[in-house]
Amino acid sequence: MAVKPLGERLVIKMVEAEEKTKSGIVLPGSAKEKPQMAEILAIGAGITSDEKKKDEVKVGDKVIFSKFAGTEVKIDGEELIVIKLADVLAVIE
Amino acid sequence: MAVKPLGERLVIKMVEAEEKTKSGIVLPGSAKEKPQMAEILAIGAGITSDEKKKDEVKVGDKVIFSKFAGTEVKIDGEELIVIKLADVLAVIE
Amino acid sequence: MAVKPLGERLVIKMVEAEEKTKSGIVLPGSAKEKPQMAEILAIGAGITSDEKKKDEVKVGDKVIFSKFAGTEVKIDGEELIVIKLADVLAVIE
Amino acid sequence: MAVKPLGERLVIKMVEAEEKTKSGIVLPGSAKEKPQMAEILAIGAGITSDEKKKDEVKVGDKVIFSKFAGTEVKIDGEELIVIKLADVLAVIE
Amino acid sequence: MAVKPLGERLVIKMVEAEEKTKSGIVLPGSAKEKPQMAEILAIGAGITSDEKKKDEVKVGDKVIFSKFAGTEVKIDGEELIVIKLADVLAVIE
Amino acid sequence: MAVKPLGERLVIKMVEAEEKTKSGIVLPGSAKEKPQMAEILAIGAGITSDEKKKDEVKVGDKVIFSKFAGTEVKIDGEELIVIKLADVLAVIE
Amino acid sequence: MAVKPLGERLVIKMVEAEEKTKSGIVLPGSAKEKPQMAEILAIGAGITSDEKKKDEVKVGDKVIFSKFAGTEVKIDGEELIVIKLADVLAVIE
Repeated sequence: MAVKPLGERLVIKMVEAEEKTKSGIVLPGSAKEKPQMAEILAIGAGITSDEKKKDEVKVGDKVIFSKFAGTEVKIDGEELIVIKLADVLAVIE
Repeated sequence: MAVKPLGERLVIKMVEAEEKTKSGIVLPGSAKEKPQMAEILAIGAGITSDEKKKDEVKVGDKVIFSKFAGTEVKIDGEELIVIKLADVLAVIE
Repeated sequence: MAVKPLGERLVIKMVEAEEKTKSGIVLPGSAKEKPQMAEILAIGAGITSDEKKKDEVKVGDKVIFSKFAGTEVKIDGEELIVIKLADVLAVIE
Repeated sequence: MAVKPLGERLVIKMVEAEEKTKSGIVLPGSAKEKPQMAEILAIGAGITSDEKKKDEVKVGDKVIFSKFAGTEVKIDGEELIVIKLADVLAVIE
Repeated sequence: MAVKPLGERLVIKMVEAEEKTKSGIVLPGSAKEKPQMAEILAIGAGITSDEKKKDEVKVGDKVIFSKFAGTEVKIDGEELIVIKLADVLAVIE
Repeated sequence: MAVKPLGERLVIKMVEAEEKTKSGIVLPGSAKEKPQMAEILAIGAGITSDEKKKDEVKVGDKVIFSKFAGTEVKIDGEELIVIKLADVLAVIE
Repeated sequence: MAVKPLGERLVIKMVEAEEKTKSGIVLPGSAKEKPQMAEILAIGAGITSDEKKKDEVKVGDKVIFSKFAGTEVKIDGEELIVIKLADVLAVIE
């Protein structure tokens, strides 16, 4: 069972704390708009069909995004987030 | 008697709890914007006539949407929701 | 005496409760944005001259709309509502 | 002395209560957004130069509009209202 | 020393009360958005270079505008108002 | 060291009170949105590359602007203001 | 590990106080919207692919921006800020 995001949305999954430590990412706890790191699982057609936006993100990319953005949903026991591309700040390479 | 949604709207019907369990979908009760799952019954001409949007949804698709979106209406004893495409988050495949 | 709606507006008239029962429509009393059913009496030129919108509604159609939309006006003893097309949710067929 | 409305504005003048009774118009006193009836005295160039809008209204038309719209001005002892076309709901024919 | 308004702005100067009486204009004191009468001293390039807007106003025109619009400035002892064209309601001819 | 404003912004510097008196400008102290006079030091590429806007302002022009607009910054001991063109009301010639 | 900003965003890093003193920049402590100085580390594709915007900023530029804009993130022990181009006021040359 898969989740296909509509329009300019992505489906992402939070990256575990362990993985964050390994990759050296530390997110400050006091930041008012603390960003969070996640991995892209699926990309909506509104992005893949847009000449300018389609090259900005790909499945598997690690991204940071504001914790106030996106909608959480649990599917097959897996917690996912559906988020708009405009709410994704950056890709960590 | 049928309901034809206007513009970029859809008519959807909530999927029963039993079905949700079978398909493995579990929606977290504590989420602030708890999404809900429904099936598409009808699609407005504003969507079917739009080159970019017409392939994103089809009648019978299971979709998740925010509980704060849409307008409920009961027709022939059946509870339906009229919702804008922009308020549908994703299709569950 | 007739009322010609301007722009993308319609003139509609509430459908009586008796008629609603016959057609099997029941509108839930507890819904926050309880939609209402009405019949279209006139359609503005902003709709009839628009290639995309002109086929969505015709005089005589039964429509549902939000009770918070539209402006009531009594003409020749008849209570009418002038409403924007964007505030009409669906046509009941 | 005349008032030439700018942009997509009209100059209108309230129709007297006597006239309203003759034409059979009765405006409900309890409506939250009680519309009012007036006659068009002048039409701005933003309307007369617009292919879509220029045929919707003409000088002499009786129109209904929301009482919250428009600005009152008294000229040569005559009380007039300058109002945007978008705030005029319908023409009474 | 002159004031050249930028964009779609005008420089106007209030017409004195005496002049208002001669021309027969009386502005109601109780109106919530009491319009005021002024004369146009200068017109911005955003207006004079716009095909649709350039013919609507000319230097010397008497205009009415909302008292809540515009910014007052005193230059060489003369009180002027810089105002956007969109806030000018009508020209008095 | 120079400050290059981005987009449709300008860098301006307040004109001293002495200069204001010489040029005869007096700004009313009671105005709610008291405009202020300044000289243009630099103009952003968003203005100089725009066919319509590039002729409206040039370096050295004296301008008036609302005191609520712009961001103050001190560079090499000089107090400057970075402001959007849309917040500049007029040029004093 | 690098941070690739999405859309019309930049990744910037605050310039240390020592460096600020050397370059002569002094930011007033009482300003309501105190701007801050930073260096550009990365530029999003929404900027580099835009004919008008791509020449306004380059990696290494020192910029000033409002302290209310941007999102802080710590990566490999380095504190970075992801900010929209529209929130960058000027480049210090």
